[in-house]
Amino acid sequence: MQIVSTIKDVKAVVKKWKEEGHTIGFVPTMGFLHEGHGSLITAAREANEKVVVSIFVNPMQFGPNEDFDSYPHDLERDSKICENLGVDLIFHPTPEEMYPQDFFTYVDMSVLTEELCGLNREGHFRGVCTVVNKLFNITQPDRAYFGEKDAQQLAIIKQMVKDLCMNVEVIDCPTVREEDGLAKSSRNTYLSPEDRGAALIVSDTISLGESLVKEGETNAEKLIAAMETHLKTEPKAKIEYVKVVDGETLQPISTIRPGVLVAIAVHIGKTRLIDNFSVRKL
Amino acid sequence: MQIVSTIKDVKAVVKKWKEEGHTIGFVPTMGFLHEGHGSLITAAREANEKVVVSIFVNPMQFGPNEDFDSYPHDLERDSKICENLGVDLIFHPTPEEMYPQDFFTYVDMSVLTEELCGLNREGHFRGVCTVVNKLFNITQPDRAYFGEKDAQQLAIIKQMVKDLCMNVEVIDCPTVREEDGLAKSSRNTYLSPEDRGAALIVSDTISLGESLVKEGETNAEKLIAAMETHLKTEPKAKIEYVKVVDGETLQPISTIRPGVLVAIAVHIGKTRLIDNFSVRKL
Repeated sequence: MQIVSTIKDVKAVVKKWKEEGHTIGFVPTMGFLHEGHGSLITAAREANEKVVVSIFVNPMQFGPNEDFDSYPHDLERDSKICENLGVDLIFHPTPEEMYPQDFFTYVDMSVLTEELCGLNREGHFRGVCTVVNKLFNITQPDRAYFGEKDAQQLAIIKQMVKDLCMNVEVIDCPTVREEDGLAKSSRNTYLSPEDRGAALIVSDTISLGESLVKEGETNAEKLIAAMETHLKTEPKAKIEYVKVVDGETLQPISTIRPGVLVAIAVHIGKTRLIDNFSVRKL
Repeated sequence: MQIVSTIKDVKAVVKKWKEEGHTIGFVPTMGFLHEGHGSLITAAREANEKVVVSIFVNPMQFGPNEDFDSYPHDLERDSKICENLGVDLIFHPTPEEMYPQDFFTYVDMSVLTEELCGLNREGHFRGVCTVVNKLFNITQPDRAYFGEKDAQQLAIIKQMVKDLCMNVEVIDCPTVREEDGLAKSSRNTYLSPEDRGAALIVSDTISLGESLVKEGETNAEKLIAAMETHLKTEPKAKIEYVKVVDGETLQPISTIRPGVLVAIAVHIGKTRLIDNFSVRKL
């Protein structure tokens, strides 16, 4: 496994691979890898001859009051995980390598970015679109892997690839959870032991929502009310949103049907947690 | 020569060419081809095994009061020109093919888009960046060819390719002029015979500017004043701007040096004309 930090070095490796006719799977990450990332890497490993993982905490997708400076990192640990999972190349650039002083371009999107997390994280998805677009151009993958936990990000990346006719297939992978149900996230490390207990309300509420839909609830307003009521049973939980939206356009809908995304964002102490489920069938 | 109108068809041809190991040169146009486009196609023909020309009047780069509806077109004539110049593939999509109803993504840029034509054509360069980005992804060229006449567009495309690490080399080609000096442009067809005479002031002023720099003028303010004075000798000319800027960042500069771009925009009757020269050496 190689670890490189410059765009030029990645492009040289990728060029060689392309000339040799290899397929490339790509997993973009912000590092501090957990089993969620592991599942993406494993999926990439199974379907492609070469696997690239990027580890880059992207400053452009963090707001001024967000956790860019405190975001956890451990390159040595991440490298071991990648090596064990059969990764061929880690791309670990500096912010200056990705955004030199004379960097002026951005990729953004209307509609999908204006709902859910977009309401409280202004500019977040512009940062995501820009960095992912750039990483796709650098690594030129046949397939790129994203987790369903970040459902809005996944929908936005798919939309960008479709709109700009990018030559990559976006593969979504199921959310990986702790034994008690909490969705895996690098941000879970922020949780104090007490907050970690309280955080369970998030995945519990997702389970509740899934059950209600399975039992026949098709009224989005009623589902939201039930999920909000359940979230409020945890005094430490501060609701940011509970939303029922179209899974592709992310626009609010009133009647639940297959293809609908039910997404929540909740603050537990200083930690912001998101979770969701998709309605596959009624 | 093939003429196709769907993205899918272009991608199929390009995929085959790539598999056969061919290099691809790409010339994006809005059609109504003239010798300026011809010089781009010829340059592409000389350096690449396959040449793709796109003909697409891009609605996204026209403002509400601009000439989208009246922009000239003649696909039959354009096809003959392309065939004679050895083009392999014309891509001629509909607006709906390029921008379906659920199209939400855009590519844009700060700094370079905020000067010169960007001041009076809001959203123009967002349209240019978005369509060129998409066309690059569709045609996947090794090299793409742009005219120096649209100097700001050229600088912006180069910046986009650099910032997003796109896998294409941008080649700039010299402005092609009529015998009397007027820069070739599809928009010259808008000029009445009388306006066509008056339009000569534009290229004349560029010649004057070049002479003054050659004679030793290094003060941008003085150069601008001399060029504006000259433009005002033509009663039909309405100056939009005369600017001296850095050729890469397009930011105004006060002392002329190699790498500087001198650009003008002038209205003759209802026709907006632009022209420019670059300072190569002092």
